[in-house]
Amino acid sequence: MMITKIDHLGIAVHSLDETVSYYEKALGLKCEHREEVPSQKVRTAFFTVGQTHIELLEPTSPDSPIAKFLEKNPKGGIHHVAFGTDDITGQLATAKGAGVALINETPVNGAHEMQVAFLHPKSTYGVLTELCAKKH
Amino acid sequence: MMITKIDHLGIAVHSLDETVSYYEKALGLKCEHREEVPSQKVRTAFFTVGQTHIELLEPTSPDSPIAKFLEKNPKGGIHHVAFGTDDITGQLATAKGAGVALINETPVNGAHEMQVAFLHPKSTYGVLTELCAKKH
Repeated sequence: MMITKIDHLGIAVHSLDETVSYYEKALGLKCEHREEVPSQKVRTAFFTVGQTHIELLEPTSPDSPIAKFLEKNPKGGIHHVAFGTDDITGQLATAKGAGVALINETPVNGAHEMQVAFLHPKSTYGVLTELCAKKH
Repeated sequence: MMITKIDHLGIAVHSLDETVSYYEKALGLKCEHREEVPSQKVRTAFFTVGQTHIELLEPTSPDSPIAKFLEKNPKGGIHHVAFGTDDITGQLATAKGAGVALINETPVNGAHEMQVAFLHPKSTYGVLTELCAKKH
């Protein structure tokens, strides 16, 4: 039972087109995939950097969680960090045992055939933290 | 010439002791090393997560850049992302060619025998971005 990698970084942006262009031209990365996720009210664009994906998140509605983040962080910025694990249930039990508040007591279905769970930000010292694992 | 991984995430914290305990007990990670970096006016603690290091940063002085970040982000949070590359000079040229403002026009010596350079935050859509490479 352990965390094996940083699975992805979620980055809030105002314009997917503008920031995809930045990551491609300025950093030389290649956008691999774009997808709209209606349940989260975001449009996303994915890049791979070694073991980690960068996930750009543009809100599609003013009541998207990403729109609210952008109100507080007008330039955009890192919205969350997702740790990849081979045992999400065990990791959640470890976190709960350490006194961490959980948004998801049990994993929920995420994109890309993943199970995901968020820790409550009041427990994580300013870093919105997700755990994720591939479905078995 | 390319970015090969996310080398590290720099996370600003008020108390190294308190957050090291959180990362160890709640996430099951192991603190490998602590170091004070007087030039940056921080104390640091390092964890390894796959290819990436997590670098907790506690200010040692009110005029530390991390102290200023904590004034704006009282809970703490992700301060910067460092992309590892095998050609930092080439990456800087690519960024500059794309119109990105650079804090470091040429790489400077960082911790752990690395060469590092920061892109200017006005160009990076809210994500303070570092490039780094092992010294040859």
